[in-house]
Amino acid sequence: MTIREDEIAEFLAFGERLADAAAAVTLKYFRAPIDVEHKTGKGDFDPVTRADREAETVIRDLIATTYPHHGILGEELGLEERGGDWTDRAHWVIDPIDGTRAFISGLPLWGTLIAFNDGERPALGIVDFPATRERFVGAPGQARLGTRLLKTRACPGLDQATLSTTDPDLFATDTDRAAFKRVAERVRLTRYGCDCYAYCMVAAGFMDLVVESGLAAYDVQALIPLVEAAGGIITGWDGRPADQGGRIIAAGDRRIHEQAMSLLNG
Amino acid sequence: MTIREDEIAEFLAFGERLADAAAAVTLKYFRAPIDVEHKTGKGDFDPVTRADREAETVIRDLIATTYPHHGILGEELGLEERGGDWTDRAHWVIDPIDGTRAFISGLPLWGTLIAFNDGERPALGIVDFPATRERFVGAPGQARLGTRLLKTRACPGLDQATLSTTDPDLFATDTDRAAFKRVAERVRLTRYGCDCYAYCMVAAGFMDLVVESGLAAYDVQALIPLVEAAGGIITGWDGRPADQGGRIIAAGDRRIHEQAMSLLNG
Repeated sequence: MTIREDEIAEFLAFGERLADAAAAVTLKYFRAPIDVEHKTGKGDFDPVTRADREAETVIRDLIATTYPHHGILGEELGLEERGGDWTDRAHWVIDPIDGTRAFISGLPLWGTLIAFNDGERPALGIVDFPATRERFVGAPGQARLGTRLLKTRACPGLDQATLSTTDPDLFATDTDRAAFKRVAERVRLTRYGCDCYAYCMVAAGFMDLVVESGLAAYDVQALIPLVEAAGGIITGWDGRPADQGGRIIAAGDRRIHEQAMSLLNG
Repeated sequence: MTIREDEIAEFLAFGERLADAAAAVTLKYFRAPIDVEHKTGKGDFDPVTRADREAETVIRDLIATTYPHHGILGEELGLEERGGDWTDRAHWVIDPIDGTRAFISGLPLWGTLIAFNDGERPALGIVDFPATRERFVGAPGQARLGTRLLKTRACPGLDQATLSTTDPDLFATDTDRAAFKRVAERVRLTRYGCDCYAYCMVAAGFMDLVVESGLAAYDVQALIPLVEAAGGIITGWDGRPADQGGRIIAAGDRRIHEQAMSLLNG
C-alpha cells in the first residue's frame, strides 16, 4: 500500500466533498418528469445523460482545482492524463450514476462511485446513494454506512447464501449467463436489480454473494475497498484482482467465494 | 362507490396512523444482524416473520379498538370476521411487509400495504416504505407521494415502455412465465426486484407497466386506488377486477394495457 496514513483522512474527506457535489446535480435530475411520447427525435431531454455528464464535470473540476497532479478516469468523459504514466500514480476513478436503468425508472438504488487509486490499487471507496441518503465508505481498516461500522456475515455454504446480480439478461455472453445460472441454482435466494447496492449489502452482512460480468474499472474500483475492509473478498471470476472490471465476484465469506468460483469456472 | 366523502378523510388519516404504527415495528427488525450459520434449528431468530406478525398484530389491535365493526384480512393472521358476511361491508386488507425477500436482504424497497375496502371495492390505499421514508397514498381523486400529486405518464406503445416484475423466476406456472416473456421481448426496458414499489413508479409516471402472477388479495388491494387515481389501470390479465389478486397487470396508459393484455392472452 502506497497511501500514507495521513492521506487516508484527507482524501476520504475530499471524496465525500466530491459525493456531496455530485448529489446536488444528480438529485436535480432524478425523477424529473419525462414524457416517453416526446423522448424521440432531436432536442431530447435525456435526464440521465445530462445528470451523468454534469455530475462528472463537477467532480472533475473539483479534483483539477484541488489536486491538479491527480489523474482522473470517469465513465462519461474518459481518461484525463496529468502528464506521464499517471496510472502508476495517484488518480480518481468515478462513475457519477451507477444504475442508470434504475435512475430513469425512478428507482432509488442508483449510486455515485468514487474511488481513490494510489497508483497501486483502489485504496479508498465512496459509494453514495443520494436518493436514500445513504453513504457507504471503504478504506484500510474501516467499512461503514455513515458512522456505523460494517462487517460481512459468515456463510459457510452456497445453499445458505443470498446471491445478487443486476439483471439475468445482462451477462456479456451466453457462457457467462450459463456460469451464473450454475451458481444461482445452488443458492437459497437470488435478488435482481441492485447494481452497486448489492455490494454494499454484502459489506453490511445482509447478502452473501454478487456475480456479474461486463463491468468497467469505474463500475468496481470504489467497491473494492468497501467489500475488503468489511471482511469480504472481491476478485475476477479467475481469482485475479478486480480493479479492471470484467467478470466480477464479491463474497462476504471466503468459503462461498471458493465454492462459487469453482462453479463459475466449471 | 359506497364510501362517503367525509369517510375518505377520516379513514385515510386512520390508515396513516396504522402505517406509522407498523413502521415502528418493522424498522426495529429491518437490518437486524443475523448470522446465516445460526439460522437453522430451533429457537431461530427470524426477523421477517417476527416483524410481519408483530406489525400485523399492532395494526389489527388499532382497527379493533377504533372500528370494532370493521373486518380485517391480513397476510399473516388471515381473516378476522366481525359477524355476518363482512366482505360486503367495510373492511381492511393489509400486508405488513410486501417484499420479504428484499427485507431479509437488507434492501429498502419493501412496503407496508394498507387498503380500506368499503365492501364494494378497495377505495383507499396506503403504500408505505419505512426504509426510504416514502409514503404513497391513493384515494378517489388523489394519488400522492407525501404531499406531491402523482400522475401516470403517456406511453403509446410497448416499444417505449418500461416494464417491471418482481422476479422472472417467480411466475406461478410455465404458461405465465412464457406470457410474461412475450411482453418483455417487446418493451424498451425491464426491471426486476421491485415488489410493490413498481406499482408506485407506474403511478408516479416513471415506469409504464407491471406484470405479475400469483398475487394474493392483500398484495394488491392497496395498490388499486393508487394506480387508478393517478390515471392508470390495474386489472387481472383477463381484464377483470384485480381485487382478489392472481395474475395482475398495471399500466399507466390504457394503450399499452391493451397491447400487453393481448400478448399475455395470445
